[in-house]
Amino acid sequence: MAAAAAMEVCNKGVTLKRHVTGYPTEADMELVTGTVRLAVPPGSTAVMVKNLYLSCDPYMRSRMTRHEVPSYVPDFVPGEVLTAFGVSKVVESGHPGYKAGDLVWGMVGCEEYTLITDTESLFKISHPEYPLSYYTGVLGMPGLTAYAGFFDVAKPKKGEYVFVSAASGAVGQLVGQLAKITGCYVVGSAGSDEKVNLLKTKFGFDDAFNYKKEQDLNAALKRCFPEGIDIYFENVGGAMLDAVLLNMRLHGRVSVCGLISQYNLEQPEGVRNLFCVVTKRIRVEGFMVTEYFGTYSKFEEDMAGYLKDGKITYIEDFAEGIENLPGALIGLFYGRNIGKQLVAVARE
Amino acid sequence: MAAAAAMEVCNKGVTLKRHVTGYPTEADMELVTGTVRLAVPPGSTAVMVKNLYLSCDPYMRSRMTRHEVPSYVPDFVPGEVLTAFGVSKVVESGHPGYKAGDLVWGMVGCEEYTLITDTESLFKISHPEYPLSYYTGVLGMPGLTAYAGFFDVAKPKKGEYVFVSAASGAVGQLVGQLAKITGCYVVGSAGSDEKVNLLKTKFGFDDAFNYKKEQDLNAALKRCFPEGIDIYFENVGGAMLDAVLLNMRLHGRVSVCGLISQYNLEQPEGVRNLFCVVTKRIRVEGFMVTEYFGTYSKFEEDMAGYLKDGKITYIEDFAEGIENLPGALIGLFYGRNIGKQLVAVARE
Ligand SMILES: NC(=O)c1ccc[n+]([C@@H]2O[C@H](COP(=O)([O-])OP(=O)(O)OC[C@H]3O[C@@H](n4cnc5c(N)ncnc54)[C@H](OP(=O)(O)O)[C@@H]3O)[C@@H](O)[C@H]2O)c1
Ligand SMILES: NC(=O)c1ccc[n+]([C@@H]2O[C@H](COP(=O)([O-])OP(=O)(O)OC[C@H]3O[C@@H](n4cnc5c(N)ncnc54)[C@H](OP(=O)(O)O)[C@@H]3O)[C@@H](O)[C@H]2O)c1
Repeated sequence: MAAAAAMEVCNKGVTLKRHVTGYPTEADMELVTGTVRLAVPPGSTAVMVKNLYLSCDPYMRSRMTRHEVPSYVPDFVPGEVLTAFGVSKVVESGHPGYKAGDLVWGMVGCEEYTLITDTESLFKISHPEYPLSYYTGVLGMPGLTAYAGFFDVAKPKKGEYVFVSAASGAVGQLVGQLAKITGCYVVGSAGSDEKVNLLKTKFGFDDAFNYKKEQDLNAALKRCFPEGIDIYFENVGGAMLDAVLLNMRLHGRVSVCGLISQYNLEQPEGVRNLFCVVTKRIRVEGFMVTEYFGTYSKFEEDMAGYLKDGKITYIEDFAEGIENLPGALIGLFYGRNIGKQLVAVARE
Repeated sequence: MAAAAAMEVCNKGVTLKRHVTGYPTEADMELVTGTVRLAVPPGSTAVMVKNLYLSCDPYMRSRMTRHEVPSYVPDFVPGEVLTAFGVSKVVESGHPGYKAGDLVWGMVGCEEYTLITDTESLFKISHPEYPLSYYTGVLGMPGLTAYAGFFDVAKPKKGEYVFVSAASGAVGQLVGQLAKITGCYVVGSAGSDEKVNLLKTKFGFDDAFNYKKEQDLNAALKRCFPEGIDIYFENVGGAMLDAVLLNMRLHGRVSVCGLISQYNLEQPEGVRNLFCVVTKRIRVEGFMVTEYFGTYSKFEEDMAGYLKDGKITYIEDFAEGIENLPGALIGLFYGRNIGKQLVAVARE
């Protein structure tokens, strides 16, 4: 721990410039350049990491809002570097469990180097034979989200009819493939013909539609699910949820992962067809991936197995360089990403 | 089965005059007088019953609507006698399981005498030591609804915070008392000060409020539940559900029994705060009492036991005479009933 001899390097990062209302813009964030000493404070158990990949995730939008009442995740602070899930390499460690060169994933700053004091929330990377970027996606938080939200919350049975919205995204593409592995019939919706094509040709969805081209979502769902839907993996909310409720089967389940269509609205849209919950005995259940972090290793082994056996494939959308993080993050809310959106900060 | 000798008697009943949109009125129904022979057709397994008590239930509103797509219960047919749950005495039986004099409850016509061909859906009354009218309420369908929706759907634990809407009604007054038996803290809402008073003094609710007098339902719930709500037994929907969602605790459950505030609206109101379902990992689950009819005898014994031990008390609101059924039924949607609304057609 030769802190005195530590190198001081340039450290670019992205800060929140001001709290956001409505859709975020690049002007709400700022690229800043500082310096950092690649060392951990003497006596501390922190680790200094070099960030390789940073994950752009929809929940980050909520952190850009200023909440009067504390939200489920802390608000970002204007002037401070954003935080995000990242894949990183340990540069220097004061923690007995980590040493320089270790590969980890967890919560880091949106910057080139981060001093991590909360090492509790770091995970070691056990399968470096896969692209390291996978630890922002299929082997990371979105992967665990798909796995827990589908298996533990929706509790699928072979032969059931599954619908996934935002189906080509970080989470959705995996839910569809897990549904196929389970022997379900699965249909996805996405926001472009290119994405719809991917769903059908690359991810093995039985059917898919471009929701932006449908006049009537209820009719689209009726066309794709003449027998109705057993499981809806809910990523978007709003009008889609209303249409899905009309098409659920008896004892259907809605695994509520997220409601991205609502994240930039000043007031959420109203969902009207809730009486279906009674008449069809539907279970609508929310979950947070953070509650499943304790089960991460089992998930990691299962998912690595699926990847090895070619049962799961994964598409990523790379932005190159920390300076492109704001645009990549904003792009999520316009559907610009095709697959998992991440930022390559450094390739090793 | 001396059918030839059977008496022909006058049979008053209530028919649907026309399908209903919006709030039902007395003019939508008609009192008709026919005659009936107190006999069952030779060779049939039907039973002829004399109806003693008829139940007025909110779901009957849905049957008054003309649905393009079949609803969860069949629409009433204009010109035909309405059907409802009733408590009846067998007058004549072609069924080996029933004999004249037996007391039963189940689906009957809204009339003085009904020939029941679907005897599968009849229940024998095992506890005639209680008022027979209880079999339209605490020992009948609403009782089983409260019991199943609270224990099986909400899965309460001792010490949890429970909120019940339409709390003084047929179902609500029981849910509150079952919550107290379970060791929960329970608060109810109702539409008059008289009902609120009943909740606190008669049914043992820990607290109660008159929702019609509250400017801000969210504030009322915050006042009653500074720690939040674990279980919401949902009878009304709409604005109340939206306010409740804001006040649910982590891993809260919403047992969705009914949404009476929506039954007379042309378009249901929108519920906006569904993102709480994700952040608080809420389970929102609907149920139908009909699915629990197979468990009726266990329920009947449990509930009869509670009544015997004085752990459950029950309030009924009687309309006298079949001719008052339309007004009693309509009254449900204006909160005119205090306790279980029923119609005394004949006292034995
Ligand atoms: N509960 C949890 O613990 C948890 C964890 C992770 C993620 N999530 C949630 O899961 C959902 C998917 O996240 P992800 O990381 O997989 O993101 P993603 O799908 O990779 O990216 C977001 C996608 O959402 C779609 N979208 C954006 N605005 C929309 C709108 N107004 N209506 C419909 N679709 C819209 C876009 O795809 P199209 O081109 O198809 O519109 C966009 O590409 C989000 O709601 C997120 O908040 C929840
Ligand atoms: N899922 C099932 O199998 C099942 C079975 C039975 C009943 N249910 C449902 O359970 C609920 C209660 O039924 P119940 O038989 O016990 O009826 P009830 O509570 O005895 O009578 C209806 C009560 O609802 C309240 N109400 C009417 N309009 C309202 C509005 N716009 N907003 C708020 N409250 C309103 C009134 O009380 P206030 O004076 O307090 O407003 C009225 O007295 C209904 O939603 C019903 O459909 C479901």
